[in-house]
Amino acid sequence: MRLDDLARRLNLTLEGPPAAVAIEVTSVASLASATASDLAFVLEPRHLAAAARSNAGALIVGQKMPAPARTPAFPLLRADEPALAAAQAIALLRPAWRPAPGIHPTASIHPSAVVGPGASIGAFVAIGEHCRLGRDAVLHPHVVLYPHVTAGDGFLAHAHAVVREGTVIGDGVTLQPGVVLGGDGFGFARRGDGSHAKIPQVGTVAIGDGAEIQANSCIDRASLDVTRIGPGTIIDNLVQVAHNCEVGADVILCSQVGLAGHTVIEDQAILAGQVGVAGHCTVGRGAVITAQSGTHGDIPPGVMISGSPGFGHAEWLRATSAFSRLPDMQRELRRLRAEIEQISARLSSQSAPDQS
Amino acid sequence: MRLDDLARRLNLTLEGPPAAVAIEVTSVASLASATASDLAFVLEPRHLAAAARSNAGALIVGQKMPAPARTPAFPLLRADEPALAAAQAIALLRPAWRPAPGIHPTASIHPSAVVGPGASIGAFVAIGEHCRLGRDAVLHPHVVLYPHVTAGDGFLAHAHAVVREGTVIGDGVTLQPGVVLGGDGFGFARRGDGSHAKIPQVGTVAIGDGAEIQANSCIDRASLDVTRIGPGTIIDNLVQVAHNCEVGADVILCSQVGLAGHTVIEDQAILAGQVGVAGHCTVGRGAVITAQSGTHGDIPPGVMISGSPGFGHAEWLRATSAFSRLPDMQRELRRLRAEIEQISARLSSQSAPDQS
Amino acid sequence: MRLDDLARRLNLTLEGPPAAVAIEVTSVASLASATASDLAFVLEPRHLAAAARSNAGALIVGQKMPAPARTPAFPLLRADEPALAAAQAIALLRPAWRPAPGIHPTASIHPSAVVGPGASIGAFVAIGEHCRLGRDAVLHPHVVLYPHVTAGDGFLAHAHAVVREGTVIGDGVTLQPGVVLGGDGFGFARRGDGSHAKIPQVGTVAIGDGAEIQANSCIDRASLDVTRIGPGTIIDNLVQVAHNCEVGADVILCSQVGLAGHTVIEDQAILAGQVGVAGHCTVGRGAVITAQSGTHGDIPPGVMISGSPGFGHAEWLRATSAFSRLPDMQRELRRLRAEIEQISARLSSQSAPDQS
Repeated sequence: MRLDDLARRLNLTLEGPPAAVAIEVTSVASLASATASDLAFVLEPRHLAAAARSNAGALIVGQKMPAPARTPAFPLLRADEPALAAAQAIALLRPAWRPAPGIHPTASIHPSAVVGPGASIGAFVAIGEHCRLGRDAVLHPHVVLYPHVTAGDGFLAHAHAVVREGTVIGDGVTLQPGVVLGGDGFGFARRGDGSHAKIPQVGTVAIGDGAEIQANSCIDRASLDVTRIGPGTIIDNLVQVAHNCEVGADVILCSQVGLAGHTVIEDQAILAGQVGVAGHCTVGRGAVITAQSGTHGDIPPGVMISGSPGFGHAEWLRATSAFSRLPDMQRELRRLRAEIEQISARLSSQSAPDQS
Repeated sequence: MRLDDLARRLNLTLEGPPAAVAIEVTSVASLASATASDLAFVLEPRHLAAAARSNAGALIVGQKMPAPARTPAFPLLRADEPALAAAQAIALLRPAWRPAPGIHPTASIHPSAVVGPGASIGAFVAIGEHCRLGRDAVLHPHVVLYPHVTAGDGFLAHAHAVVREGTVIGDGVTLQPGVVLGGDGFGFARRGDGSHAKIPQVGTVAIGDGAEIQANSCIDRASLDVTRIGPGTIIDNLVQVAHNCEVGADVILCSQVGLAGHTVIEDQAILAGQVGVAGHCTVGRGAVITAQSGTHGDIPPGVMISGSPGFGHAEWLRATSAFSRLPDMQRELRRLRAEIEQISARLSSQSAPDQS
Repeated sequence: MRLDDLARRLNLTLEGPPAAVAIEVTSVASLASATASDLAFVLEPRHLAAAARSNAGALIVGQKMPAPARTPAFPLLRADEPALAAAQAIALLRPAWRPAPGIHPTASIHPSAVVGPGASIGAFVAIGEHCRLGRDAVLHPHVVLYPHVTAGDGFLAHAHAVVREGTVIGDGVTLQPGVVLGGDGFGFARRGDGSHAKIPQVGTVAIGDGAEIQANSCIDRASLDVTRIGPGTIIDNLVQVAHNCEVGADVILCSQVGLAGHTVIEDQAILAGQVGVAGHCTVGRGAVITAQSGTHGDIPPGVMISGSPGFGHAEWLRATSAFSRLPDMQRELRRLRAEIEQISARLSSQSAPDQS
């Protein structure tokens, strides 16, 4: 595609010599691997040095990014939101593979299920009774939908995703391989003798429009009500969301995060990798919890929390910096103790004559 | 079901106006979502306020729970063990979905395998040679049993559960979706050049009666002997149990717990979310390890441990509380040092004349 | 097999009475469960006491291991690398189960796919178009290969492993059940309103010769380039390797490790259980990160790191030891403060007369 076409289609400003308009790019690549027929992008100033060494044919950059120091200069496609523009360029020039529409002869679809037009249903997919899928669903091989699952338009589920009975899925939801929606919550009642009786887990799961849940993550069904994942929320691999959680809109749960039961995560909160949140507490809107941190209390909106148990990030940085010097502090305490005792002894010996 | 019937069937005491006996409830719901035809329950006093606002038709409560302040008063079903009674009420009034008995035509069952009566075998289930299942098995779509798996009565396995060769499963065991039983242990021998030779993992896994293992958790086979999960033990999602572990009876392993090889967890121990236990150590009977903690040594029975590395919970609470004040402690140390040096200097100047 | 045969085949030195050469062992077992027809092994001196109580017919030991104190004495097979010898003995005498070659009639193999000779393809395996597998592949039931996957000789994939489109797999690679190769990376561009646009993940994954990835672990595809796992690298269960990571050769990633995007792990590094590494940093060759630790900076080659955030292991041991005594330190600080104020007051009162 010619750069002027690309600029028009993505609403970007083309900056460069007059001949740049006619340059053709056919794909998108990273700075390091790009060739003259590739578009690349620079999202952060620290990548300008790598950009200067790149063989890319053109670059997407932000409005204020300096031009990388290369001769000949790069044609630049300037964007207000360069990461978004890069995402759009990839979707245009190097679209992800997608199977053709059609239903594989080995798929098992219950006669009572309704699959909308345009669907691609892969080998050995199993769709239970009374399921209803909107338009353009893509179910890769071995996806299992239990009975009474509903999904909106554009549902994309990768191989071995499992959706348990009664789950309600919005429009444009993506499940990566191995995701489990609606597994039983971890609900058991302890008997007097220390054994446990299972509490039947008869609630459901609801996934909002545009949410994406990545590989082998688990969203448990509620005990009685609904476990909710809000619209636009993105969940990385191997994440645990327990029964009755309420995760808001545009939340980010990074890999291996664990939410215990009845946790509330408000809109746009960000939980970094391996974070744990205890049950029955609320993480406020836009709060950030840094990697490996944990909390068992409510977190106010907008704050950044670190540590296990977590507290304010700035204080935590100071505390962890002091932590490695704890042995020095112990030694200093012992020295101070010794010196004070010396001083006291000396003062006692000074004052002793006064009292005698 | 009439409340007097329900009280009789669950062995509860019905408390309320005479007319209460004839009230009908048809389902169980949470306090917030219950309507007049729903039973709800109050297990903790902190939920009494929510109970007072509930529209539930009746409540299960413990023997000493105060009546919620609602007019008209709730009919109360009093139980010695109210959580158990609630579980039984849900099982009675709102039973979990369960597929009808029958064998799906797409299932692949080896002719040498024996499946007991009453089984429900879903689409694309694969059962290998010489497997033996007891009565009333439910294998949801895509369950895979490798050869020589045996399971007792009432085996329930959800979609995509995998049971490797030779695994021995007791009565009444439940596997949620994606569980892997008997994957190879992480056993490798290091060669002189830093590379690794695989140690064939030829032991097995044994799962005790009534155990439940939840979504995408992994119980590795032993190298040579048996990895054991005791009866009644409950294991949440995304848990790792390594080769040769011995997990006792009625143990609770919460989500994302990891046990390294040859770990022993004694009966009724509780490991909260994201806990890690190093290999070759023992967690004593009834011990509790709080969330995100870790241990690489033995834990005595009955204690509560926190932190990574873990120590006594009460001491840990005090230590973590002090941790956030570490920078203050550093400052105070520096102030004390300065003051002591001032004092010492002053004493030296005082005493100097004495010695001159 | 006679011990003299075994010694010859594994290149070991047989030590024992002349009659030992004719002793027959038929299997390998642990010290505790071995009978007279079993071979066992002792790799560490702390197992000598257990060895002395063992009924094994013979033992593999290192060149310098003392003979266990049993009467009659054990025939000993001495090895330069006893763990390797034990692995070879198990492979010889107690080989892991392996399905016979053949293609199950239910498998779905696209006509354009090429499967090399000697393959065993299980029930409901799905192989997409243009896949190419070398000799002697073993695909257990329900393995899914998306289109354009290539694998070398001896590819072994357990049930429910998923390999996404375009993944390149070397020779002798093993995937345990539920592994996901090539799931989409967690790449999203944030819009001004806090919502996210998906960045198409169109890179691939490459797995080096002899690597093994265990149950339910996830290796994400790169955004644009290649996520690489080096040859001989071994990855335990439930591990997360994010997009664009470069994991070197003979690396060990223990269970539940998480690597964020663009992380580099150099050859022979060891990351213990539940370790987390932030994105865009490098863990040097042979470095060791102990369990539950985390790092967001580069780690030099060869060092051992602990803690979250991590620092030198020896310093960390001292710091964690001091940590549990933090409340004592606080108390001591308060006592020192009180004593210093007493001393200062006394000095003031002493000196007061001088000034008056």
